[in-house]
Amino acid sequence: MNVYADNAATTAVSATALAAMMPCFQEIYGNPSSLHTPGQRAAEKLAAARETFAKYLNADPREITFTSGGSEADNQALRSAALLGARKGKKHIISTKFEHHAILHTLQALEKEGFEATLLDIPPDGVVTAEQVKAALRPDTCLVTVMFANNEIGTIQPIPEIGAVCHEAGVLFHTDAVQAAGHLPIDVQSMHIDMLSLSAHKFHGPKGVGVLYARRGIALTNVIHGGAQERGKRAGTENIPGICGAAAAFEEACANMEKNAAFLEPLRDKLIAGLTAIPHTVLNGDPKRRLPGNVNVCFEGIEGESLLLLLDAKGIAASSGSACTSGSLDPSHVLLALGRPHEVAHGSLRLSLSEYNTEAEIDYILKELPNIVSYLRDMSPVWDELEKGQRPHLI
Amino acid sequence: MNVYADNAATTAVSATALAAMMPCFQEIYGNPSSLHTPGQRAAEKLAAARETFAKYLNADPREITFTSGGSEADNQALRSAALLGARKGKKHIISTKFEHHAILHTLQALEKEGFEATLLDIPPDGVVTAEQVKAALRPDTCLVTVMFANNEIGTIQPIPEIGAVCHEAGVLFHTDAVQAAGHLPIDVQSMHIDMLSLSAHKFHGPKGVGVLYARRGIALTNVIHGGAQERGKRAGTENIPGICGAAAAFEEACANMEKNAAFLEPLRDKLIAGLTAIPHTVLNGDPKRRLPGNVNVCFEGIEGESLLLLLDAKGIAASSGSACTSGSLDPSHVLLALGRPHEVAHGSLRLSLSEYNTEAEIDYILKELPNIVSYLRDMSPVWDELEKGQRPHLI
Repeated sequence: MNVYADNAATTAVSATALAAMMPCFQEIYGNPSSLHTPGQRAAEKLAAARETFAKYLNADPREITFTSGGSEADNQALRSAALLGARKGKKHIISTKFEHHAILHTLQALEKEGFEATLLDIPPDGVVTAEQVKAALRPDTCLVTVMFANNEIGTIQPIPEIGAVCHEAGVLFHTDAVQAAGHLPIDVQSMHIDMLSLSAHKFHGPKGVGVLYARRGIALTNVIHGGAQERGKRAGTENIPGICGAAAAFEEACANMEKNAAFLEPLRDKLIAGLTAIPHTVLNGDPKRRLPGNVNVCFEGIEGESLLLLLDAKGIAASSGSACTSGSLDPSHVLLALGRPHEVAHGSLRLSLSEYNTEAEIDYILKELPNIVSYLRDMSPVWDELEKGQRPHLI
Repeated sequence: MNVYADNAATTAVSATALAAMMPCFQEIYGNPSSLHTPGQRAAEKLAAARETFAKYLNADPREITFTSGGSEADNQALRSAALLGARKGKKHIISTKFEHHAILHTLQALEKEGFEATLLDIPPDGVVTAEQVKAALRPDTCLVTVMFANNEIGTIQPIPEIGAVCHEAGVLFHTDAVQAAGHLPIDVQSMHIDMLSLSAHKFHGPKGVGVLYARRGIALTNVIHGGAQERGKRAGTENIPGICGAAAAFEEACANMEKNAAFLEPLRDKLIAGLTAIPHTVLNGDPKRRLPGNVNVCFEGIEGESLLLLLDAKGIAASSGSACTSGSLDPSHVLLALGRPHEVAHGSLRLSLSEYNTEAEIDYILKELPNIVSYLRDMSPVWDELEKGQRPHLI
């Protein structure tokens, strides 16, 4: 049996999304900046896609900028807010220790340019509080950026509360909603969100398309200079097939959100129950305040990479952390931020489900995984020491 | 009859490119950064695409970075060279007055950061010379960036000669080859090219994919910070379907380059001959040193936009300048740089052909266009004055 349980890394394109893309490759292929009919047909597609995103975010179409993905949207949001802040002499940014690297590395770049970043600690349940944000606010704070849901442990942050704290203080609030969009309800108005990033390939849309929502009045800074596309704020011929696929996928995901969550949450909870029944195993992040499809556990005494390879041999595609940091030998910065010791963080496993998974697949994972954990522990010198009492269990 | 003659703005995706993309949407959809089999299958696709671009540019696969398009590649090339230059105290950049806005606007951004740009004048034939570049070199020059072929008038620049001048002086040489790639032979070694940008949708590949070639040893600066994709130099999950389509399109275009040029050049020359037979009409750019499919003329006494709309009514999709500046009322900066007066530059028409066009389509354009020009001139008060000798003809 083949089980794809790495939907937080990327997803298959849905039939609906692909159907929306297909006419744009060879039929409606004009450049939307062109005055002629083939161009204007593409421009209509672009406008419709923009309206779809605006509708499901409760935004205005003019507040939607299409980018090449979530990373670009994150970069542009932070650069824009930083520049606006700098003009007022405000160069302090608040974020968290478990953001995606598109946020953390952009903050590092900004720090080299004279900005200062405060990264909030992550409480043991993986949920940052609005009080933490409030306590970190300073007169020179120009931006708070807190992710909507974490990409590794799936915990959902109190976005409306954080947004309210920011707006009370007159500080811009950005959220990296790459993992949340299409999976959790988002309303930029009631949630006090000024800027938001999302990525289509996380909800069965195509790779290579992201959205930056920016509240009207927030002047965006170009990350890519050139032509006048996207109201002059993002140069480059618009990826019309991708954008149409993204909009169709977003509409589909939003329309089916409740149904998908109702399907996924019991599967997720069954997986969590089954995996945490394995001795010396711990769930990372709050069991309920998490994405409907996210499971993330640490198994003591084993290496996550060996686990992934043996799972792969059984046809199960999973992840130890985020795909973006694969190849790194360092343990997940998210699990370290959560307070897991290095040796525990190394034994992590993320299973991320989508509505394309089935209960039979969950049962298959639950049948195979305990044996693999057992096999790896039998081979592990660390486990041997733990079992002989030569070192204390950490889980 | 519908004639798409705006292939410099964008092209239809070829059947070959689409066939290369299709398996990557729902079958080989993994994240290439993932360790599991679905991810590694995607990683293999990515590596193969990188090899294809390297092969046809005579580069090494490690020198190929995938971006979201030509504009992003241009931005990253210029930013990278500027930073490398600044580290040595060299902050002077040489370019030309008729570059694409992805170059010109990035240069403007760099000027705000303390760099200085010299923009070379454009000779009447639309071909910058290596001597002009040589004369502009200074001890503090860190980069020369000259486009391979102009996007409006299609003139081909003496890239090998300019590259040789740069290398003799120890200065980095970048070329925006967005209009040239897939249409003209490119060899980064023999042409002394250090960095090169290209865009897939200009040669029947998909929109949303570009390539930045950078010679080994040239440290790229991130335009997009985040994950470790593209050797840490371009964050964001790779657009595998797009990249595979781009590589297939590039291979197809390169393999058929001579055949396509042999087909297009006579069509181009027939169009040029037919259009310049209309009185008071001038060809923009050298008649031979131009892209095989490019025709660009100015008709005195009419407005380019009216011309486009009437052509569109006849099913002919054309452009007055580049699509990226449509919507602007200013005349083309390219034609102004070429020395055309404002009132002449306003009456410009670009017809850009691809191998998908037919001779019957050319004949159709030649049948319809003179009537439209005549009709517009009959309505034009300016033409009336010209005909009455109340103002002198400029063409």
